[in-house]
Amino acid sequence: MGAGSEIEEGSRLEPRFDASGTIPCITVDAETGEVLMVAYMNREALDQTIRTGLATYYSRSRKKLWVKGEESGFVQHVREVRVDCDQDCILIRVSVEGGASCHVGYRSCFYRRLKPGSSSELEFVYPEKVFDPRKVYRPSS
Amino acid sequence: MGAGSEIEEGSRLEPRFDASGTIPCITVDAETGEVLMVAYMNREALDQTIRTGLATYYSRSRKKLWVKGEESGFVQHVREVRVDCDQDCILIRVSVEGGASCHVGYRSCFYRRLKPGSSSELEFVYPEKVFDPRKVYRPSS
Repeated sequence: MGAGSEIEEGSRLEPRFDASGTIPCITVDAETGEVLMVAYMNREALDQTIRTGLATYYSRSRKKLWVKGEESGFVQHVREVRVDCDQDCILIRVSVEGGASCHVGYRSCFYRRLKPGSSSELEFVYPEKVFDPRKVYRPSS
Repeated sequence: MGAGSEIEEGSRLEPRFDASGTIPCITVDAETGEVLMVAYMNREALDQTIRTGLATYYSRSRKKLWVKGEESGFVQHVREVRVDCDQDCILIRVSVEGGASCHVGYRSCFYRRLKPGSSSELEFVYPEKVFDPRKVYRPSS
């Protein structure tokens, strides 16, 4: 795709869903810009996100929509919807109720980094979890 | 996958490549945290990124590795490699030579956002491009 194409230079949202009908979505904190999570949307999830202002994703494993926070309470209020150059990735800027976005309990899903000098050993980034997932999520019966 | 699993709580990098052998990688500016681009890595690209310290991706369309900036000069020096909770997404924090990461000419690939109140009309985020792609990329012969 050359520079100057309508997809890249145009002013119309034309998300390119992949063969399975989904598009990756990066979710960042609207205040700090920190990347919180990555999930997927299908057309319905994207439309619902835009219409309701609540981040709504599509679970590829469970094959259904989920409104982020519907169980945990950590709802994401969408402040801005961006799209990348070739429109095969969405980015949303959100304000998070309760300040946590990862089901493991951290503020962001990206809570581990490679130790400097290592190619396989991770270290944790945040001093502590925001919440205890055992107290927030009920076990599925 | 329950909380407490080794993938989520462990200290070993065990990236889960998808069926096609790739994993999405979010690239952010190490200084500002701004999301610059999203691309894909296969095992070789990830290993090379870690080994060389230069962001190296895998082009799914051209089916080959590419060192970011090898043509444009906008090389990305990797300061940190993160992984998300279920290890199916990589995030790298980079310093970019020349300050541009999008082949269209902007600092970030996410240079457009939905106009407030619209579900389809985009507006441009940055006042101007960092470079003119016609002067940086040679046309393929």
